[in-house]
Amino acid sequence: MTAASNTYDVVVVGGGISGLSAAKLLKANGLTPVVLEARDRVGGRTFTVRNKETKWVDLGGAYIGPTQNRILRLAKEYGIQTYKVNEQESLVHYVNGKSHPFKGSFPPMWNPFVLLDFNNLWRTMDEMGKEIPREAPWRAPHAEEWDKMTMLQLFEKICWTSKVLHFAKLFVNVNVTSEPHEVSALWFLWYVKQCGGTMRIFSTTNGGSPQFAGIIMSRTKAVFLERKFVGGSSQISEFMADELGDLVKLESPVYRIDQSGDMVEVQTLDKQTYTAKYLILATPPGLNMKMHFSPELPPLRNQLISRVPMGSVIKCMVYYRENFWRKKGYCGSMVIEEEGAPISLTLDDTKPDGSVPAIMGFILARKCRKLSGLTKEERLKKICEIYSRVLGSEEALHPVHYEEKNWCEEEYSGGCYTAYFPPGILTQYGKVLREPVGRLYFAGTETATEWSGYMEGAVQAGERAAREVLCVMKKIDKSQIWQTEPQSVEVPAIPFVTTFWERNLPSVGGLLKMMGVSAFLSVATVSGLVIYKKGLIPRS
Amino acid sequence: MTAASNTYDVVVVGGGISGLSAAKLLKANGLTPVVLEARDRVGGRTFTVRNKETKWVDLGGAYIGPTQNRILRLAKEYGIQTYKVNEQESLVHYVNGKSHPFKGSFPPMWNPFVLLDFNNLWRTMDEMGKEIPREAPWRAPHAEEWDKMTMLQLFEKICWTSKVLHFAKLFVNVNVTSEPHEVSALWFLWYVKQCGGTMRIFSTTNGGSPQFAGIIMSRTKAVFLERKFVGGSSQISEFMADELGDLVKLESPVYRIDQSGDMVEVQTLDKQTYTAKYLILATPPGLNMKMHFSPELPPLRNQLISRVPMGSVIKCMVYYRENFWRKKGYCGSMVIEEEGAPISLTLDDTKPDGSVPAIMGFILARKCRKLSGLTKEERLKKICEIYSRVLGSEEALHPVHYEEKNWCEEEYSGGCYTAYFPPGILTQYGKVLREPVGRLYFAGTETATEWSGYMEGAVQAGERAAREVLCVMKKIDKSQIWQTEPQSVEVPAIPFVTTFWERNLPSVGGLLKMMGVSAFLSVATVSGLVIYKKGLIPRS
Repeated sequence: MTAASNTYDVVVVGGGISGLSAAKLLKANGLTPVVLEARDRVGGRTFTVRNKETKWVDLGGAYIGPTQNRILRLAKEYGIQTYKVNEQESLVHYVNGKSHPFKGSFPPMWNPFVLLDFNNLWRTMDEMGKEIPREAPWRAPHAEEWDKMTMLQLFEKICWTSKVLHFAKLFVNVNVTSEPHEVSALWFLWYVKQCGGTMRIFSTTNGGSPQFAGIIMSRTKAVFLERKFVGGSSQISEFMADELGDLVKLESPVYRIDQSGDMVEVQTLDKQTYTAKYLILATPPGLNMKMHFSPELPPLRNQLISRVPMGSVIKCMVYYRENFWRKKGYCGSMVIEEEGAPISLTLDDTKPDGSVPAIMGFILARKCRKLSGLTKEERLKKICEIYSRVLGSEEALHPVHYEEKNWCEEEYSGGCYTAYFPPGILTQYGKVLREPVGRLYFAGTETATEWSGYMEGAVQAGERAAREVLCVMKKIDKSQIWQTEPQSVEVPAIPFVTTFWERNLPSVGGLLKMMGVSAFLSVATVSGLVIYKKGLIPRS
Repeated sequence: MTAASNTYDVVVVGGGISGLSAAKLLKANGLTPVVLEARDRVGGRTFTVRNKETKWVDLGGAYIGPTQNRILRLAKEYGIQTYKVNEQESLVHYVNGKSHPFKGSFPPMWNPFVLLDFNNLWRTMDEMGKEIPREAPWRAPHAEEWDKMTMLQLFEKICWTSKVLHFAKLFVNVNVTSEPHEVSALWFLWYVKQCGGTMRIFSTTNGGSPQFAGIIMSRTKAVFLERKFVGGSSQISEFMADELGDLVKLESPVYRIDQSGDMVEVQTLDKQTYTAKYLILATPPGLNMKMHFSPELPPLRNQLISRVPMGSVIKCMVYYRENFWRKKGYCGSMVIEEEGAPISLTLDDTKPDGSVPAIMGFILARKCRKLSGLTKEERLKKICEIYSRVLGSEEALHPVHYEEKNWCEEEYSGGCYTAYFPPGILTQYGKVLREPVGRLYFAGTETATEWSGYMEGAVQAGERAAREVLCVMKKIDKSQIWQTEPQSVEVPAIPFVTTFWERNLPSVGGLLKMMGVSAFLSVATVSGLVIYKKGLIPRS
């Protein structure tokens, strides 16, 4: 090992989408980067497994949709096609032990108070989101106040009905694989906002004809479980790595970063030393902890990286001989509200050509922690049981194959999908999230300002960090660091519209004022509505 | 480097009090441990600096008191004396821009509603603490409910007056160097409980004659800022390290732990490899992240260690030519409630013989984050200014020397005093905190069940982990792992008593019921009391 042979312009730590897109851009600009990846594969939190049972399956990040133009641009460059997840037949909402199929109109059991409350919840979140700057949520006018609250506290202020409150909690579970009481309200509102807000969803269902119906599913899926890549999402990273060739080093976990001299010196577990002018850290912020820094990181960064844990999820793919749910009129999408059920959300994962029938399901947050102790077989059994109940089909009990990935056990991810901010952290430490430290620059989807937490955010962050390095090397101007992305031709965003009613229906609170409280309470009692807040009826 | 020469019975990672007491006990039992310490000194979060200006000064953990019998036992063994922090003269409570000296009777401005509220706060916390098992807080009957709440939420439920609410927040700042909205209520209630509860404080002031007075200070100091070690607290670790001799390796940060073979193999940044039958990790749990594990940690432990951040504090020692505050009748203890003041709590730090006059002050939590960006000189200036205002003395503006330690910048502590649990973490991950992983055992004050977070907890945890290893090596029985400690003769615990009034005075809520709400509200208005809760008067 000679020092000279291991000298590069830029060391990129992390061979996920973010690190690889940084290296790709640096190389395109004539520099020589090297990507150091801890695992024996590229892709990070995307993870496509190929075998004869599944052909291919995405056990990590998989879903994409309109406005995610950077990842779509990369896919197009490499000739990777996208396809729409099947939602031809009915979706199912399972709650209180009963399945409610729906499609294009809202589930029959919903009473008008719940609808008002439901409408008001999304409207309120979007309105609060409007005052949060994407690039600096800590500068929102109410930043301090909202950061002191957990999202559970905020939901308890907004929601009047237990149905909507339960649904709101599930929305957090599904979107950020954590619990509403674990996350800062400011952070979660920012997260939803920088994905385009809860309304963005409308454009994905039925080509822009918003009906109250799809909301259950599409708001839950929150933000774009619309499409997948034919052949799997890891291909994006694999193609980029192919392009970089020898500049990608696998099985090279970085444990030491020394910038006390004129260059940055990096050491890996396989006893290599790499030297470079600059370094881009393209890992989740918490994984910076895996490295020993010389000199020590500044106080705020040193503390930030132990304050932003990764979410908890097991992605579970159950394979069947036949696509039995479609025959029963179900598309495979299920929203399951039952504490005892392992899975909270499913989607059809059959291949676009109809082969390899499968259902994808998420074990989320508290359920993930609870079920991590079981064996793979025990989890499969529980999953099939709930699918059988929800779909009303004995066939669900007879899978032909099973794949799963518990992301909590991954040392070099820490969890999935993304990092969350507990209360109080975003306002106190947010501003150092992507602030360079000497020769160190920060990428990773967590540092993005659009679609942070997604593959799209990984690209935005990686390319931005690469341009920061290009700028400090005087190759581009400072004004070129942040760039917008032209819209994808193949997957355009349909401008979303809200209906008059969505904008103007009162909240339950507003209705109360209009009707007079006592009149309302008797109606509520009759309709079996649970109102537990605003001090009207004390909660137990 | 030959493998054989680096083979030991047990590798202990971390040369703080916990790791060293583990190694000491192992050696006493005929085993050969080796302690690997990242820094160039032992002591961890205790840090005694010696120089001509200060003689010696504790820039880390320093205070001890009754019931901390294990650390007192070690001190006695090494002939380290303790002395009482000066509290002969008046304490000062600074609030709303005014100093209120007090001593043996409560500050004059307190109105009876505030006193009721104050009394009720501590009583409620202690009562809640009673149902939390020290060794398994996640098994408390209300564990889930309390863990979903932040301590701020709980305070807002308990407190009726803004005075007491502010004070309660300061109590959290001082005791766990974090903000009430950052920590789980379950965790904080457990933390106070396993220190003996808020009532334990009584025994320390004026020899067990509880007067409402001392409460301000002593409850704030919460738990024992009563005594210090003559010569500094690092001596404990230094004596233990002397005893261990060559078995302590400094400047040996561990970056890899491999237990995939028959032995545990450990690698350090100075390129040494150590091999042992067992390993004790005696670092804060979050610092396990600095190591790369083979095989990977189990999912819950892998996620736990990125979910338990360390608190934020700068310890500041200002030295003066003369002990001017004592001349003015002040002992040097100040409780400062002012958002703009850097320091929230001070104590006299003059040497027991009266030499080297000094005031110790803490910059805590949010203030620590805010002031981390200033220079040392800027911080000193701000500190002297507030001391001058609180003590009403121009002399405070003329320090002769200054020492400080910002623990947030320490890569190998992560912060001080201890780790905190954000909402939701203790119930979901607590049970794996000290659960062995193969040949790995866990020490560190965070894993203690008595005085966790203190030097005492470090000893308890270190000795318990050592005995776990002795047990698995068949040298002791399982029943011997957990041991109680005889009481210190020199620093005995005076049984604490509560007065009839403390036990039986109503809360403000209870008083309201007794008096009738409307009658009360007019009284409250007259007395200028701010009542913002229970829906009586909506907060802005």
